[in-house]
This record gives sequence, structure tokens and C-alpha cells, in this order.
Amino acid sequence: MSVLDLSHEVAIGIDIGGTNTKYGLVNHRGEILEKGDIKTDAYPTVKDFIDALYDAIKPIIDKHKSNTRLVGVGIGAPNGNYYTGTIEYAPNLIWKGILPIAELMTKKFGVPCSLTNDANAAAVGEMMYGAARGMKDFIMITLGTGVGSGIVANGSLIYGHDGFAGELGHVIVRPGGRKHWSTGHQGSLEAYCSATGIAITAKKLRAENPQSLLNNIPEDHIDSKSVYEAAMAGDETAKEVFRYTGQILGEALANFIMFSSPEAIILFGGVIKAGELIMNPTKEHMEKNLLPIFQNKVKLVFSELKEADAAILGASALVWEKI
Amino acid sequence: MSVLDLSHEVAIGIDIGGTNTKYGLVNHRGEILEKGDIKTDAYPTVKDFIDALYDAIKPIIDKHKSNTRLVGVGIGAPNGNYYTGTIEYAPNLIWKGILPIAELMTKKFGVPCSLTNDANAAAVGEMMYGAARGMKDFIMITLGTGVGSGIVANGSLIYGHDGFAGELGHVIVRPGGRKHWSTGHQGSLEAYCSATGIAITAKKLRAENPQSLLNNIPEDHIDSKSVYEAAMAGDETAKEVFRYTGQILGEALANFIMFSSPEAIILFGGVIKAGELIMNPTKEHMEKNLLPIFQNKVKLVFSELKEADAAILGASALVWEKI
Repeated sequence: MSVLDLSHEVAIGIDIGGTNTKYGLVNHRGEILEKGDIKTDAYPTVKDFIDALYDAIKPIIDKHKSNTRLVGVGIGAPNGNYYTGTIEYAPNLIWKGILPIAELMTKKFGVPCSLTNDANAAAVGEMMYGAARGMKDFIMITLGTGVGSGIVANGSLIYGHDGFAGELGHVIVRPGGRKHWSTGHQGSLEAYCSATGIAITAKKLRAENPQSLLNNIPEDHIDSKSVYEAAMAGDETAKEVFRYTGQILGEALANFIMFSSPEAIILFGGVIKAGELIMNPTKEHMEKNLLPIFQNKVKLVFSELKEADAAILGASALVWEKI
Repeated sequence: MSVLDLSHEVAIGIDIGGTNTKYGLVNHRGEILEKGDIKTDAYPTVKDFIDALYDAIKPIIDKHKSNTRLVGVGIGAPNGNYYTGTIEYAPNLIWKGILPIAELMTKKFGVPCSLTNDANAAAVGEMMYGAARGMKDFIMITLGTGVGSGIVANGSLIYGHDGFAGELGHVIVRPGGRKHWSTGHQGSLEAYCSATGIAITAKKLRAENPQSLLNNIPEDHIDSKSVYEAAMAGDETAKEVFRYTGQILGEALANFIMFSSPEAIILFGGVIKAGELIMNPTKEHMEKNLLPIFQNKVKLVFSELKEADAAILGASALVWEKI
């Protein structure tokens, strides 16, 4: 097999989360040949974790060895720094401080390892396999437990001078507004538009509207999904939760467009399961807040990648992007 | 003379403003060999304007012909689009619609012409000759009659998919806040932190503080300069004008840092003549609004270019950047 035969090259994509770590063997067309997962928090040290990861992945590599060539490992991880290949002070991981993941992985697997934060990895995945194929300027917004982002300009991810660019969840959109449960800052995008923020809004609005169906949901079951179901059952308060969330998200997106004038903004993550309930107000308020030169130009779309696979695909795509 | 002898290469830098157009012949070291200006609004058509510009500049080119080689023309202009080389619907110019300036200039001068908006040109100038020398990630904020910006990431200006990236003056920093005199949007950075915005703040605060020295200034003389003088004379209300302006600017800069994580933010334009009065509150509120991973990392500095020359230098630098 020629080393120039790209069709046989494969990469390992790894998505490190606080609880689970998912991995997959991915080919150049974005097909996941094999996948699996291990517990992230079951290993007292990073070294133990990487040993376990190797033990899980090595059989897969060997299984496909005869007709593939492994070219690298890509990792998406919270607080992943692309420049240094380290995870730095990630609050959701049990290992503290600065972790030299890329270096340890390269030694263990014998191939180059790239690492970035999970939202950046998702953006690269979207550029290679998803809704941003062929685009040189777009912004990926991940709406999950938190709000993350990956920004591509001139065809490259913006990492900034220190590797930490693209923390759009922490942009202040309501000065003096809702206090963030973790950062303590007031009025950040994440405080309103993450799944966590949506639950806070829902609890506030149901208290103000005793007739709302939301009041039938137990306190600890109030989440983006249960609010969506109430809205689909016709509850006006539940609809208002998404309208309010979409307004704030749309205003924030307008600001982001003024920054990098992207061809598209791609929304990703659990919150987008609300579909039009979140998309319509977001689009309305995004357009309303744009200067005329930006209006009706920017595509606002949902991710085209399956959520279960996107993290693995995005991480593996880091390998191809670097080649 | 060898064509590879860069030391003899020169570029023409042109800064098109609503009233005046400045030009200069600039060498590779950022030295302005000759400069001059013509009236922008004295010519009924763009063609007449370019003919007049040629008549003014040709003698300078000829004078230095024996020991220089002209490699291009760079233009900074309001609403200048880098991709198309056109000025599009610039509200402050007497010629309306889309103006194919780069094409007309190339034909007239016989060398390539690059064009971008004035703030982008200033950013390129700062990168080549000023405070951003050697930097790959920085943001330039121009605080003049309006607020403009030029964003450099991965060593390149961010133009966006349509050439209009970097309109940070129109980012909304106070939702529902002060209405912009021209765009009609509420709470934009420009509405507060431009010279125009500062005058509005000063008029508001002096009305609330009858004892302020600002009340001795005639209505049409209230500007960034006269407020500065009152502050230097010890007037607390005048100081509060800059403190308030700096707070809003600092909060906005913190948001911008979360976007592109620049090594530095460079402030430029008439408003920076207020020195520490504007710098100190800006820096304080910028740091206060940053996540810990960004704190005490980003240099906040004033431009190192002379304001009178910066526009010409920046425009000429577009030529070198393209080579």
C-alpha cells in the first residue's frame, strides 16, 4: 500500500468528557469504522487513563491494520490547549493542574496527537464532514450543559495568541444580569442560553405563571427536554422560555457577526432539539440587531452531524486538518 | 537596480476621508518620503477624483523614479471592501452606490491596488510599523468620530466571508440603551465610546451636575478635547465622563478577548488623547470582566503611530502585506 493512498488513512478521534471518554477509528470520508467508550473518572492518574485508553483502542487498530494506515490521534477535551497539547485546569476532570495529554498520547500510540477544546473540535468536524463543508468563515455554537464555540476565519480555527480563543459562552450579553453559577460573572450568554440557563429561566417563569404546565414537572426534572415537551403540548409559558432564550442568543449572534462576518453560524448540542421553538426567535433577533450590510446574508443552521458521533468525528478531523 | 532589492521598493498609501484625501509615498521601512492631500468632495465623479489624485501623485512618483520602484497602491476608505476593491454605500462620501476604486486606480496608475476600510488599514500599519510589530493576534480599536476596528488573527486580517468583518463599533454593549444617531440601534459601543458618544455623555452629565465646569462650555464646543481639559482642571463630572466611557469600553474589550484571545488591544484615534483618564477605567473594567484564564495577559496599549501619518502608513502597508 502506498503511503500516498489517502483512502486508506485512518485517525483516532477521542472526546474526553468529565464522566465518559468516547473514541472511534475514522477514515478520510468521515466514516466511523469502530467506536467505543471508557469511564473518564475511573482512573486515579492521567497515566492510568491513557493506559486504559490504549488497551481499549489497540485491538481496533490491529483489527484494521491490514488495510489501513493510522496517521494520528485527535482529541477534543474541556480546556484543551491546541498550542501546548495540554488540558489546563479543567474543572470537570478529576485530574488537576496542567496535563500533558498530547505528549503522553504520542508516546503511547506512536503517532502524532493534536488536542483542542471540545467546541473547536466540533467546528473542525463540521467543516470536514458537516454543515460547514467548503466554508472558510463560520462560527460553531454548542448549546449543551454549557455554551461553547469554535470560530473559523480565513479557513483556520482561531486559537488566539494563547490557544484559548472562542469562549463565546462567557461573553456578557446582559450587563448586570443573571449571575453565572460558576464564574460569578453577571449576564453571560451561558447563564441564559445553555441547558442550565434554560432550566433557570423555566423555573423563574413557572413561578410567575401558576397556570403553566411547567408547574407539574418535579423541580429536578425541569430541563430543556421537559420544557420542550410542555411547549409542544401548547403551554405558553414553556414557549416563552424558548422565545426569551432565542432573543438573547439572537442578539449575541448579531454581535458575533459584527466581529468576524461569517458565512454561517452552526448551532449544535442538546438545546437544538427544541427545533423551531429556539431557531425562530434566535433568527428574528439576530437579523433585527444586524447592520443592513450584514442582514439576510448569514446562514443560521443546525449541525448536520449526529450528536453521538460529532465529538469523535470532530476530534479525528483535527488530524486531517494538520496534515 | 535588481527587482529583488526590496530596499528600493515604494508604495503609495492613500486615506480617503469624507472631506480630505491624504496620500504619501512610503518605503519598506515605513518612512513617508513625500505626502500631500486633495479635497475628496470637490469632484463630482469618482473618475474626476482619481484623475485629480493621479495629477497630484504622478510628480512625486517621477521625482523618486531614479532610485525607487513603485510596487503598488494601498487605500484605506470608509466601507472599503478588500475582496472586491470597491467602496460600498459609504454614507460620508458624495459618490453613491458601489465604486470600483481599485480597478480604476490600477488602470490609472499601472500598478496593483489594494483597498480596505480605514480601521483595517490602521491595523495593518500597526502590525508593520507600530505597536503590533511581530504580533499574530491583536485587535485595533479606532476611537474617533465613530468607533472602528481591525482584527488580526493567525497573522492575517479577518475580512469575513464578504469583506465586512470587524464592525465592532456596532456591537451592542447595553441592550435597550442609548439610541445611535445613524443606525438607530440601541446601546452600541459607538453610541458611547466614540467622540460623538462622549459628547452626548458630557451633555447629559453636565445637565445633572449644575456645578460642573462643563456647563461653562458652549453647546457646540462640547467634545472629547474640551471635556479632557475640564477634567485636567479638576472637574469631577468631566472625569466621570471618561470613567463611564472607559467602563463601557473595558466591558466591550473583555467580550472581544473572549472571541479571539489577542496578544494585545491597540487603541487609536482622537479619544486616546485623554490618556490615563480613559486608559485606567478601560483597563480596570476589561480585567474585571475577563475569565481568570484571560486575566493579566492581554496588553492594552495606545497606538505608536502618529495620527497624522497612520492612515497613510496603514494604507501603504496593505501593499507589502499582499506581496
